[in-house]
Amino acid sequence: MTGYPEGMLTDRNPLPEGLPARLRDQLAFVLEVDRLKTVLRQSPLAAADRRENDAEHSWHLALMVLVLAEHADEPIDVGHTVRLVVVHDLVEIYAGDTPLFGAGGGHGKHERERAAAERLFGLLPGDQARQLRGLWDEFEARETPEARFAKAVDGLQPMLLNWLAEGGTWRTPGVTGDVVRARKAVVGEGSAALWAAARALIDEGERRGWMPPG
Amino acid sequence: MTGYPEGMLTDRNPLPEGLPARLRDQLAFVLEVDRLKTVLRQSPLAAADRRENDAEHSWHLALMVLVLAEHADEPIDVGHTVRLVVVHDLVEIYAGDTPLFGAGGGHGKHERERAAAERLFGLLPGDQARQLRGLWDEFEARETPEARFAKAVDGLQPMLLNWLAEGGTWRTPGVTGDVVRARKAVVGEGSAALWAAARALIDEGERRGWMPPG
Ligand SMILES: [Ca+2]
Repeated sequence: MTGYPEGMLTDRNPLPEGLPARLRDQLAFVLEVDRLKTVLRQSPLAAADRRENDAEHSWHLALMVLVLAEHADEPIDVGHTVRLVVVHDLVEIYAGDTPLFGAGGGHGKHERERAAAERLFGLLPGDQARQLRGLWDEFEARETPEARFAKAVDGLQPMLLNWLAEGGTWRTPGVTGDVVRARKAVVGEGSAALWAAARALIDEGERRGWMPPG
Repeated sequence: MTGYPEGMLTDRNPLPEGLPARLRDQLAFVLEVDRLKTVLRQSPLAAADRRENDAEHSWHLALMVLVLAEHADEPIDVGHTVRLVVVHDLVEIYAGDTPLFGAGGGHGKHERERAAAERLFGLLPGDQARQLRGLWDEFEARETPEARFAKAVDGLQPMLLNWLAEGGTWRTPGVTGDVVRARKAVVGEGSAALWAAARALIDEGERRGWMPPG
């Protein structure tokens, strides 16, 4: 649990005292989550020569939900699914991004993220802390159709970026086609159509030598 | 209408031919909008020393809608409002961001953005082109409670970033407290509570000398 920033961004310049207390807490939270824009992922952008950050990624997933919802295997509430992806990475503000293909990167991830959730959502008024925590728990549990589709889109998006980068994170040492297929099976839990497309990208990536086959 | 990028990002590496045509078009659109991550705004981030981009801004608005919805003056469909903010800046991929306090920046903005909308949404299958164009038109028209609240949040967000930057874009030459009040009146069309908070930020910014009073 090391590496947490000291205090909140608004400590630097506290919001006016005269604001209603509940609204003041909400606005301080809104400013605190600005940090998501500084959490770097492994994915290379398609449109610029730099890595993606979590805020950009979260927006991209929201847009994908709007465009790809028809491919969900079960009926989904699109607005609710967008909510899930908007909050799904917030805990990384304090827990950091865990690379999918990193060596041992997943070790302690769950505990780290749970502690981060306690701290981050605890900045909100109690009812909203429970509400946002509930959305994150729902996403992680994959027990609703909306969560399964949100996870599917979350799995597919970096594959699309890898495609345009001609390999991207697939070129990580030790990663093979089958490693990607295994790690990305979550796409198939939400959408057979998106999983078929994802497998087409992997198959073609293998053929082009971006990662070893098998 | 100059300055459009030549072709699409997927021209660089076309998606596999074997994908179903409709899904292939949708995924090419999803990759094309990666460009939103490269459209820079004037706002300084709170959490890092650089300007914000449109994708980060759009995500931030979505999060704000979730947290601040209770302050809407009229009942709103939160999921629909989130949809509006997720798509609200997409046209800037081709039209660019128009700074609120720039000299003559608004000149031709509407025509530029309409042309950009034709081009960008036209990349989608027809039914979805109409759907996303409809969301953008709804946002711009401010005729629904959801659009009024989305616009209110869009007006407030850069003010919060300016607050933490101790002035930010408010320090633009020629900008006074009353100029900001006039340009930000849109916040009050969606939420009296958020407009009161916005005015408190402006009043205090004046007092601290970040912009001339009056
Ligand atoms: Ca804008």
